Amino acid sequence: MTTKQRTIYAGLVDETLAGQQVTLKGWVQKRRDLGGLIFVDLRDREGIVQLTFSDEFSAQARQTAEKVRSEFVIAVTGTVSLRADSAINPKMKTGKIEILVHEATILAESKTPPFDIEDGVDVNEELKLKYRYLDLRRPEMQKGLVLRSKIMLSTMRFMETNGFLNIETPYLAKSTPEGARDYLVPSRVYPGSFYALPQSPQLFKQLLMGAGFDRYFQIARCFRDEDLRGDRQPEFTQLDMETSFMNQSEIRDLVNRWVAQVMSDVVGAKVDPAKFPILHWQEAMDRFGSDKPDLRFGIELHDLSGIMKQTDFSVFTSAIEQGGFVKAIVAPNGSQHFTRKMIDAQTDYIKRFKAKGLAWVKYNNGELTGPIAKFLTAVKDQLVAALSLKDGDMVFFAAGTFSVVSDTLGYLRKYVAEELHLIDENKWDFAWIVDWPLFEYSEDFGRWIAAHHPFTMPNEEDLHYLDDDEDPHKAHAQSYDLVLNGYELGSGSIRIHTMDIQEKMLKALGFTPEKAEQAFGFLLEAMEYGFPPMGGIALGLDRLSMLLAKKDNIREVIAFPKNSNATEPMTKAPSRVSEKQLQELGLRVPD
Amino acid sequence: MTTKQRTIYAGLVDETLAGQQVTLKGWVQKRRDLGGLIFVDLRDREGIVQLTFSDEFSAQARQTAEKVRSEFVIAVTGTVSLRADSAINPKMKTGKIEILVHEATILAESKTPPFDIEDGVDVNEELKLKYRYLDLRRPEMQKGLVLRSKIMLSTMRFMETNGFLNIETPYLAKSTPEGARDYLVPSRVYPGSFYALPQSPQLFKQLLMGAGFDRYFQIARCFRDEDLRGDRQPEFTQLDMETSFMNQSEIRDLVNRWVAQVMSDVVGAKVDPAKFPILHWQEAMDRFGSDKPDLRFGIELHDLSGIMKQTDFSVFTSAIEQGGFVKAIVAPNGSQHFTRKMIDAQTDYIKRFKAKGLAWVKYNNGELTGPIAKFLTAVKDQLVAALSLKDGDMVFFAAGTFSVVSDTLGYLRKYVAEELHLIDENKWDFAWIVDWPLFEYSEDFGRWIAAHHPFTMPNEEDLHYLDDDEDPHKAHAQSYDLVLNGYELGSGSIRIHTMDIQEKMLKALGFTPEKAEQAFGFLLEAMEYGFPPMGGIALGLDRLSMLLAKKDNIREVIAFPKNSNATEPMTKAPSRVSEKQLQELGLRVPD
Repeated sequence: MTTKQRTIYAGLVDETLAGQQVTLKGWVQKRRDLGGLIFVDLRDREGIVQLTFSDEFSAQARQTAEKVRSEFVIAVTGTVSLRADSAINPKMKTGKIEILVHEATILAESKTPPFDIEDGVDVNEELKLKYRYLDLRRPEMQKGLVLRSKIMLSTMRFMETNGFLNIETPYLAKSTPEGARDYLVPSRVYPGSFYALPQSPQLFKQLLMGAGFDRYFQIARCFRDEDLRGDRQPEFTQLDMETSFMNQSEIRDLVNRWVAQVMSDVVGAKVDPAKFPILHWQEAMDRFGSDKPDLRFGIELHDLSGIMKQTDFSVFTSAIEQGGFVKAIVAPNGSQHFTRKMIDAQTDYIKRFKAKGLAWVKYNNGELTGPIAKFLTAVKDQLVAALSLKDGDMVFFAAGTFSVVSDTLGYLRKYVAEELHLIDENKWDFAWIVDWPLFEYSEDFGRWIAAHHPFTMPNEEDLHYLDDDEDPHKAHAQSYDLVLNGYELGSGSIRIHTMDIQEKMLKALGFTPEKAEQAFGFLLEAMEYGFPPMGGIALGLDRLSMLLAKKDNIREVIAFPKNSNATEPMTKAPSRVSEKQLQELGLRVPD
Repeated sequence: MTTKQRTIYAGLVDETLAGQQVTLKGWVQKRRDLGGLIFVDLRDREGIVQLTFSDEFSAQARQTAEKVRSEFVIAVTGTVSLRADSAINPKMKTGKIEILVHEATILAESKTPPFDIEDGVDVNEELKLKYRYLDLRRPEMQKGLVLRSKIMLSTMRFMETNGFLNIETPYLAKSTPEGARDYLVPSRVYPGSFYALPQSPQLFKQLLMGAGFDRYFQIARCFRDEDLRGDRQPEFTQLDMETSFMNQSEIRDLVNRWVAQVMSDVVGAKVDPAKFPILHWQEAMDRFGSDKPDLRFGIELHDLSGIMKQTDFSVFTSAIEQGGFVKAIVAPNGSQHFTRKMIDAQTDYIKRFKAKGLAWVKYNNGELTGPIAKFLTAVKDQLVAALSLKDGDMVFFAAGTFSVVSDTLGYLRKYVAEELHLIDENKWDFAWIVDWPLFEYSEDFGRWIAAHHPFTMPNEEDLHYLDDDEDPHKAHAQSYDLVLNGYELGSGSIRIHTMDIQEKMLKALGFTPEKAEQAFGFLLEAMEYGFPPMGGIALGLDRLSMLLAKKDNIREVIAFPKNSNATEPMTKAPSRVSEKQLQELGLRVPD
């Protein structure tokens, strides 16, 4: 079945080629048989072009065209011809021309696909994953993966230009006690022992700096055996980098230049990193109730604790008495928009943030209305002034601890902005969140854990908090997160590079010296042999791809993702394996 | 410990900067204290430069220099100064200058390393792996990883320029029955089920072609749980690519252009792919006794079966009678070189190829000498003519089956060439080996297996061999291996893209329809939906890096390799894990 070499992609043929002969290879998108004339839309990676078959051009080709059906793979040779004005399709990139076919060969036949190969098709997710190779033929899926490829290639160019070495680190690594759950890999040589797939190359990249490579990067797969959500997968990809001797602002500048290049290369957007806000973590939480604030819109949080403690509303006053806060956001001109039903739904939703209820008032004609308005009469003027209320505005309150109030209002400001269409979907709002707490309290673990990871350098002026007689949880870190449109894109820090600080840090995390030695002994030892000051960052390429492709699930920009059960429905992984395989590994499993 | 920003790498300072101030950061290679004057060799990624400390430039800096020891990390600021003629060190890139230091800071101290940080250091391999971060500081190790990084980055540029999409495929994949032993990953969601780490992205890349991406590539990690050798690791890296609608010679041409670019970018070698020999597998075996012949030297095999069957030497005649061969190679002017002891050692070595002995003769003054010379008297003239023997030559014979004779002489020709220094170490000899047998007999499995993999397309004229009443093992394949200096660099093929041929292929490999469905059902089904003709190749980047760096073990070009027990001595992976981890996975292991 030797056919001529392809001369051009179908989707790239245009009027400049009129009169020329082309050879195309691709898939039949659709076929219309008008008797003497047959039209076929031929699809390939670059787009669709119309083929025209007629005995006038070739009887053989027309007969072949009679046999083709959707998704057949064909090769055709023909002449590019300008369409008559009346036949021009302005919606198609190739709509000014057609190909008059004089040779046609069927390269592969196709059964009728289980769903149509076209954008916006409404199909069950499991079916799409089972026939992923068909789902991926849809132009919007192709576009997403092409965009992702562009991000990767632009990134490689940037890193090379900036003197970074591309160094690979092991995927068969060691299980470490911190962080999420590891995926394990049983060892055959040492039955009962396991490798772990790395959650990130963090330790290896620090060792590479210790080895003197100065600038390292890797587009690295990372693995976490956690329950899945829309923007999580068991394996994910990050741009991982580390540098020696650079301080935080130098590293941020470098990442800024990467951002600017990728945005320009991939989506043609000119972003000016000099304008990226640099928010301290505390400020981000105070103003936006989030450590990854969406800055495409305003609706900031207002601390009303001072005003509300003057009221008789016990929900508010008792929260304040217990050391908590009352804060509010304004939904501009929202008083007509939010119905009782919507408010009830949100009251229910915010229970996940441990909010006890959703208080609100509307402001119309100079009056506050709503269930709690009667408690606010005495402070009305202060409230109107503090919130700069305008006629028609609506106010949502939250009361409780700092984290309850922040989480609740951080969520609600986004809800309000979406409801009121205040978000410009064409905006790219990057920001840096810096100066994070070194530790955070984990409800899951019931103890303090590292907010970033155990190798994050505290601020110099906070180092003393790690001493025995002080409270380490007061320390803030030399850490910096990059945020885009309310998503965390990346997380970085200056690292601890000396053993004394690292030991204190592990102690503050509850490691005994023995446990520290067992888990990180090699790192502590390495730090005794001249480790340079270092810092780096890891940037999530799945999430960046998702955002730039304007998708809302990372599965859309991953070729073969897992479903929410961490299963891949096409090949049916994971699966049972043979008894022999288990025996060689010394494993016993449930039947 | 804030210090000035580095202005340049230590190894890049040269005489063009004389008189200028520079700030450098790096490691102390060595220190010589001459009392008033202290000299420090400062090392970073790019090389070494000499620092000079004296009270004349800065008393503070000189006092700091008194404290530094080998492998301390320091920051210095000083003035670049031309050395006096008598002090110029022509062996150092920076040997014409020194830095007169007026500011110095110790950034990190170091204990005395367990071995010297310098090239050619003679240290136990396990110790080097345990302190890998120190071993990697040695200039030759740095050079190897820099070279590898250049290969990767040059490759990315090439693939992008040629319209390939960089698409990632899963590492948590499905265990398949063909090929080497899989590394398994237990599933927590489905206890008793396992993912497998892929031995290659083969199936995924075929599915990507089925999805219409047309040109795919990935720098992919691959995993095989096999016993290790010098050029094998549990995980290894390949440049994996696949194209639709291209034939074998188009794919080879593409790879040739990649080779030319990488050789030029990475080692500055101009290679001409038009001159790469394209050898049929049979020809390579006949002439060189190897499917990955080293073409940097001659010493071809000669088939002497026709001559030897006329002799009375029963070892030869019985081999021929049993359908085997007698072949020989000539060691040019080797009759003085090879001692009895050397020959005995080789006789022993070649037993691994199932050779029963090593027959040889020397040719001096027109006479054959050696133990078997007496059997060859009658055919002496024929032999001399067939081998074009010259005075002083030595001949090594092998007798037996095709594979015994090929393996033995394929090995011996390399041994002879090395002994006689006939290999030009500066040569880069690439070759393509094409038209491989579709199947090969595996002694390990005791059955026929796919010579490449089960998806390799047979030659069109050999397709009939897969029919029920014919012998499939006669078929040859549309496959092509790229060889460099006697190493297989890559292996590629045109793939089967229709279900009918794929089913026949799996049947010939001993798959029942049920087993085929269970293992590859998704692929067979995919082939029913318009799979394009496709082909690709996978190229070993570890091995390429090793060869270009002129190393003889891939561990030298891998940052954190495993040792021969698949263990990583630094972090001590694999290791025991917690009972909780095992419980969550439903696993039981030996104590």
